Amino acid sequence: MSKFLVFGHQNPDTDAIASSYGWAYLERTAFGRDAEAVALGTPNEETAFALNYFGVEAPRVVESAKAEGVSQVILTDHNEFQQSISDIRDVEVAAVIDHHRVANFETANPLYMRLEPVGSASSIVYRAAKENSVELPKEVAGLLLSGLISDTLLLKSPTTHESDPQVAKELAEIAGVNLEEYGLELLKAGTNLASKSAAELIDIDAKTFELNGNNVRVAQVNTVDINDVLNRQEEIEAAISEAIVSEGYSDFVLMITDILNSNSEILALGSNMDKVEAAFNFKLDSNHAFLAGAVSRKKQVVPQLTESFNA
Amino acid sequence: MSKFLVFGHQNPDTDAIASSYGWAYLERTAFGRDAEAVALGTPNEETAFALNYFGVEAPRVVESAKAEGVSQVILTDHNEFQQSISDIRDVEVAAVIDHHRVANFETANPLYMRLEPVGSASSIVYRAAKENSVELPKEVAGLLLSGLISDTLLLKSPTTHESDPQVAKELAEIAGVNLEEYGLELLKAGTNLASKSAAELIDIDAKTFELNGNNVRVAQVNTVDINDVLNRQEEIEAAISEAIVSEGYSDFVLMITDILNSNSEILALGSNMDKVEAAFNFKLDSNHAFLAGAVSRKKQVVPQLTESFNA
Repeated sequence: MSKFLVFGHQNPDTDAIASSYGWAYLERTAFGRDAEAVALGTPNEETAFALNYFGVEAPRVVESAKAEGVSQVILTDHNEFQQSISDIRDVEVAAVIDHHRVANFETANPLYMRLEPVGSASSIVYRAAKENSVELPKEVAGLLLSGLISDTLLLKSPTTHESDPQVAKELAEIAGVNLEEYGLELLKAGTNLASKSAAELIDIDAKTFELNGNNVRVAQVNTVDINDVLNRQEEIEAAISEAIVSEGYSDFVLMITDILNSNSEILALGSNMDKVEAAFNFKLDSNHAFLAGAVSRKKQVVPQLTESFNA
Repeated sequence: MSKFLVFGHQNPDTDAIASSYGWAYLERTAFGRDAEAVALGTPNEETAFALNYFGVEAPRVVESAKAEGVSQVILTDHNEFQQSISDIRDVEVAAVIDHHRVANFETANPLYMRLEPVGSASSIVYRAAKENSVELPKEVAGLLLSGLISDTLLLKSPTTHESDPQVAKELAEIAGVNLEEYGLELLKAGTNLASKSAAELIDIDAKTFELNGNNVRVAQVNTVDINDVLNRQEEIEAAISEAIVSEGYSDFVLMITDILNSNSEILALGSNMDKVEAAFNFKLDSNHAFLAGAVSRKKQVVPQLTESFNA
């Protein structure tokens, strides 16, 4: 039997790693396929914390499916080809487990595809395990819980689905952790920004969006104190200006998200600051401004920018 | 609460009508949404037989979602936009229940999407009903059974999934019919081609595929004797040529499928006959050729055309 590779998106976050690890487990135990979870990048510090906590080795990093001798792959936590493995168009996508919009995705053959508008891909993996009466080992449940906590900022993000709190409760029980305590520890592990250079910091979790002909980079960092990051403003602005020139971005919007109080400071530079200000109905002061209650790039920043840039 | 329209593809076949009817029933009874099953065309003779057999009125035909005052839709048995409602790009796709490849499909937001490589969309609807402990009325089960029988040619097509025979058995029980007897009656009801003009015949079950920039129309008719159809070749070719000009197809591929012996004759006209011949490794003689064992457009015709057109 040929092997299936299971992986999340490039620049993997905790949900990408956790959902692929969990789905590969399901494939092996319930669906009888030879499946291996791999990753399209090394784990970030938050993910490394979760892997270490539950005693799981980081999935090995692969660059190409063909180089692995694999012809069938399973995608978790993404579907857009430009976020996937480099040679995605040369292999067969056998399944997709995801919670994002669908775009830049197509197949030649029918496939298994399970998308739900829930807080994390890990939530879907857990539900599939339950439906198939698979008893999850402690470490698999722990990773899935971490994916859900990470994507929903401990169930506080507006991307949280009404079914997610119960999923989190059940996973925490199997994993043997206290949801609130473990959740905060996990999120804090991702806020260790002091060791990062400014260039690294603005690239931890960054995506480019084409908004009405402009290349807008929207990055996000998590912190327990927004001032810790703003104290490095000069250095960060230099890194942003360099990225704008070298990558050809029209604008760079950095969300500095306070995970304890669920707010963000927006630091923005570029050619369309009038549009950024109009998007959030605020005035930038020294290139930054406070956005109360905003924690989700997907729901609270990108749609607003899209509308403003198209106005 | 705003209403959801649920519909299968244009030129609906029995599975398109049955799966949308069944899914709308699930939405209303299990998921609490105000959903109405509608159709993007009038039922063919096979579907009309099933509707009449189980005492169900044909879903009303709609042309536009906006004209219905609807902003959210649910697609069954298809996902490609060119097979869907005319203004599909102006509304939100809330869910997709399908068993085809994915192409020409994208959304702005996360959605519910359930695709499985099984014999019919109706099979998936039945499984979802079971998972949600919904007791199906006799006529809903009867229609879903009809969708499965129609798409798999009574479980003989290679698109039949290993889980489908059990689904058929359970649905036949609920519907109170003998699977083999009802199945053959249903399929025969769809082979009454004598009453159809050639233009009607080539449009009974036809879908357009965009293959490497070409608009390729792939139609299928069921018969108990291929020669009954080939005897009308001249008239059918005239209708195909007219459709090519008026609709701008690059190519038209008609499968004439013998439902008793599970073979097809391919009749093809258009600009890329070299690619059609390469796809099936045969030579067209007077524009047609025999394809032994081929009964499935989805598995035995479209992937082969796709590969050949992209070569």
